[in-house]
Amino acid sequence: MPQSKAVNRRILLASRPHGAPTAANFKLDQTPVPVPAAGQVLLRTVYLSLDPYMRGRMSDAPSYAAPVEVGAIMVGGTVSKVEASEHPDYKVGDLVLSYSGWQDYALSDGKGLTRLDPKLGRPSYALGLLGMPGFTAYMGLLDIGQPQAGETVVVAAATGAVGSVVGQIAKLKGCRVVGIAGGADKCKYAVEELGFDACIDHRAADFPQQLAAACGKGIDVYFENVGGAVFEAVLPLLNTRARVPLCGMIASYNATGKPEGPDHLPSLMRRLLTRRIKLQGFIIFDDYGQRYPEFFKEMSGWIAAGKMKYREDIIDGLENAPQAFIGLLEGKNFGKLVIRSGDE
Amino acid sequence: MPQSKAVNRRILLASRPHGAPTAANFKLDQTPVPVPAAGQVLLRTVYLSLDPYMRGRMSDAPSYAAPVEVGAIMVGGTVSKVEASEHPDYKVGDLVLSYSGWQDYALSDGKGLTRLDPKLGRPSYALGLLGMPGFTAYMGLLDIGQPQAGETVVVAAATGAVGSVVGQIAKLKGCRVVGIAGGADKCKYAVEELGFDACIDHRAADFPQQLAAACGKGIDVYFENVGGAVFEAVLPLLNTRARVPLCGMIASYNATGKPEGPDHLPSLMRRLLTRRIKLQGFIIFDDYGQRYPEFFKEMSGWIAAGKMKYREDIIDGLENAPQAFIGLLEGKNFGKLVIRSGDE
Repeated sequence: MPQSKAVNRRILLASRPHGAPTAANFKLDQTPVPVPAAGQVLLRTVYLSLDPYMRGRMSDAPSYAAPVEVGAIMVGGTVSKVEASEHPDYKVGDLVLSYSGWQDYALSDGKGLTRLDPKLGRPSYALGLLGMPGFTAYMGLLDIGQPQAGETVVVAAATGAVGSVVGQIAKLKGCRVVGIAGGADKCKYAVEELGFDACIDHRAADFPQQLAAACGKGIDVYFENVGGAVFEAVLPLLNTRARVPLCGMIASYNATGKPEGPDHLPSLMRRLLTRRIKLQGFIIFDDYGQRYPEFFKEMSGWIAAGKMKYREDIIDGLENAPQAFIGLLEGKNFGKLVIRSGDE
Repeated sequence: MPQSKAVNRRILLASRPHGAPTAANFKLDQTPVPVPAAGQVLLRTVYLSLDPYMRGRMSDAPSYAAPVEVGAIMVGGTVSKVEASEHPDYKVGDLVLSYSGWQDYALSDGKGLTRLDPKLGRPSYALGLLGMPGFTAYMGLLDIGQPQAGETVVVAAATGAVGSVVGQIAKLKGCRVVGIAGGADKCKYAVEELGFDACIDHRAADFPQQLAAACGKGIDVYFENVGGAVFEAVLPLLNTRARVPLCGMIASYNATGKPEGPDHLPSLMRRLLTRRIKLQGFIIFDDYGQRYPEFFKEMSGWIAAGKMKYREDIIDGLENAPQAFIGLLEGKNFGKLVIRSGDE
């Protein structure tokens, strides 16, 4: 369904999910395209980023950011085009990084907008490799993980927006990299395209054994973004003084309560103690926002040098965002999930 | 029962405990006092340190140190007196810090011995305030915890060998200090003698509510040495960017398996993530051994300046070590538990 010049399609949070989100939790509505006042620009969404953290915004459980109100527009980062401008700094046709959310059009007074350099190549990379996911991979791995050459780095969701970058940076730092992904296709891609040393399918019945076999010297850095059964398999393999940067736990985002026992907390604590492990959560822009330029410069250099591969899973049509997002939480995407809601 | 000049009493590990240790897991035997060969000294145990980590040595589950073999002497730090010397560096009457274990006499070739300066005051402090427990408190709090003036520091086992030192150092650094201890006597002591701002009895039915009330601004540093229900009450109070140095988890040392559910692991991970918390295990001499002189100098200065109170729970008689140790795991001691096995 193409974008209209007159109608603004918006996807609202219709109700809060109990467990996994369903289509009924979202509602597509339509309003007239707004008109910018003095000092404002009208933005048209070209790309909308879909990311696991959005599941947290659908709930009203306490978190690090306020929830989306029921009836409000779903939040999200976008690459948007200036369609009309009453703002001195922006002109029609400019591409900007915005946080317009799940809708075709938005007004902005310019706050929080970043103009995208057309020379950078794919504009959608601003939502991925050069944006929040890439920055998360970079800082979590390098600042908290502190990988040393020759060490073993394990990352789950290995072909995803964050995991694929974690693994490639770890390879650049001389580490042995073992990915974890869902399915043979993704594992093949991680090894053959991304250059990981191994990639294990977490759906395999003997996944813990396969992981142990691939990590003959144990695990020095585990980049944690999934939790659940994957973390349970990783835990016994963590080496003395291992580091575990923690940026997500998609496996439990849809949980409706505490899982049944046994209680794994004491064994985690025992492992952390006896192996003297550091486990540290981080929220990328809150903790590292001031270091974005450093990341941007280094990552741009790697991209220019051809050292960074990045796969995008691009879905056309804003109306498909709910279904794509539901699939993201089930691991159905292959690469960074992005909605292309309109022409560049 | 006094020490003999001819008989060496030794306490052996008779069997591995299942759950809490019992008297039947220990065996007292007697052998002749050994005679030092050339290059050796004969040490007589004056003080034997009893510490929670010894529970780990009684099990053969994987840990950071080898288990005590069944039939072997229980390990432990001692303050010992040189009774006979064929070693050029030691003379009869010297007091040394040793790791002689649970016995009256031991031979040593001098390796690992530290001569104690008689001017330091109580020799038993070498097993506590100036030894492993004090060093653990110092490094865990300052290096991992990084407490800032005005922050809230919480420590459990608040009157114990480690906790009492953690809290007093935190007070020296300008923090608000809330202790957790078992019973009104210990809580009174923590506040009135050690100078903590508050101390909560974890046996109270409304312990979580009392703790929350005492930590009105949340918790910035939680020095974790107990685990279990105490940690569950602490977790929701941890502030953004809180630090949790982890040196022990006495609450689960006697566990015989994973506790029943629910599984608290996902909620821990969620808290670490959303509050960007650092949780880090450490083993004091393995991780910080090279910084012992720095600790020793500063702690000696605090002691000399009268800034450090330290309570010892001294039990006479090596034969009482098993019962005292069993009580230690139940929180029956009040202060650093030390066995006085012979005259200074």
